[in-house]
Amino acid sequence: MHRTKVRVASDLLDANETIARANRADFDRAGVRVVNLMSAPGAGKTALLERVLIDGVGELRVGVLEGDVQGSLDADRLSALHVPVTQLNTDPGFGGECHLDANMVRSALGAMELGEVDLLVIENVGNLVCPAEFRVGEDARAMISSVTEGEDKPLKYPLMFRTCELVVVNKIDLLPHLDFSLERFLENLERVNPGVEHMLLSARTGKGVEGFARWLTAVAGGEAAHA
Amino acid sequence: MHRTKVRVASDLLDANETIARANRADFDRAGVRVVNLMSAPGAGKTALLERVLIDGVGELRVGVLEGDVQGSLDADRLSALHVPVTQLNTDPGFGGECHLDANMVRSALGAMELGEVDLLVIENVGNLVCPAEFRVGEDARAMISSVTEGEDKPLKYPLMFRTCELVVVNKIDLLPHLDFSLERFLENLERVNPGVEHMLLSARTGKGVEGFARWLTAVAGGEAAHA
Repeated sequence: MHRTKVRVASDLLDANETIARANRADFDRAGVRVVNLMSAPGAGKTALLERVLIDGVGELRVGVLEGDVQGSLDADRLSALHVPVTQLNTDPGFGGECHLDANMVRSALGAMELGEVDLLVIENVGNLVCPAEFRVGEDARAMISSVTEGEDKPLKYPLMFRTCELVVVNKIDLLPHLDFSLERFLENLERVNPGVEHMLLSARTGKGVEGFARWLTAVAGGEAAHA
Repeated sequence: MHRTKVRVASDLLDANETIARANRADFDRAGVRVVNLMSAPGAGKTALLERVLIDGVGELRVGVLEGDVQGSLDADRLSALHVPVTQLNTDPGFGGECHLDANMVRSALGAMELGEVDLLVIENVGNLVCPAEFRVGEDARAMISSVTEGEDKPLKYPLMFRTCELVVVNKIDLLPHLDFSLERFLENLERVNPGVEHMLLSARTGKGVEGFARWLTAVAGGEAAHA
């Protein structure tokens, strides 16, 4: 049974790559750069986006595609900021898919007004495993690791940390109240993804958030792009 | 493609149920009660187990089965406490499976000395989606939600919160430093799983941890068991 499962998954990943390339071609044609934003549940993806969208990202027109198992809580939060937000729910899958895949994103393309945005941020389902395995047509990948999650996460979820162009370390306002060694976390990160760009910030206080806005601007300008 | 995926998944779930029942029969024969412990990454599963195992759970002999994508960091932490720990890595799957399933647990049965334990705690992979979909032969399910993850989690990952006999709210020592309304979290929990048992604790300070030890004792005694 195990062998069979691996084969099915590999076929799925092949199909996913094909569709991801098609998405990417459509995004390119529309002149839209795309960021795939990932993290564990509650690490602060929506909070960081809220903060960045309130401050604005230069002259960039930013749109958001919200991936959730169920509901539209995050999309509701973000659309209050008057940015175009599209909700994608994964629950037609068995009990809810734990990640976005290229075909799900493709099914949302028709609902998005790509001509109205320069940069699309795709907020993936909160999960440190499967989202890293499925490209969706993005130019760059960013992930958020909250300091409340512990120093060992790069070693326990290596594919996620390895597959991203940017690692955001969030909730640094809580550092004084935690047994968390930033030094050890960064050592672990260096072990799984040597030299990867990282930044420290607090989406709650706003400290360091301008660095993430600058990174988004660079991606929109064609830098930091994934091959 | 979507339709095909759902069918594959459903076959997988059928096979999983069959194997889960076989596991359960083996555990019953050995007189071992089994808890499936789940949470998002970094919510404190290992920290809570460490705390409980240091204090001891009455006269119970507790064993642990550690599920991780890669590595044995948690198993190393727990085996320092001189309890029998078995490590199960899910990375032979594509990029690492995001959950334990019944067949993975079955493959570990031979490595476990079931005669030496009264209660087996299976620490699942950190993930709020798929672990809820795969029974592994457990008598009861517990999940941990950390207050750092936010109040909305029951609404965003309803199957996980609905499928558990116990919801542990961890990291309450951080409450003074967060914008987290415990009242709203509990309202959300009540919406998805009315009347479910819950407890507040801090694995870090030890506050409330004796409640979890009592719950484990009840499970070992045949209470709080899942049908």
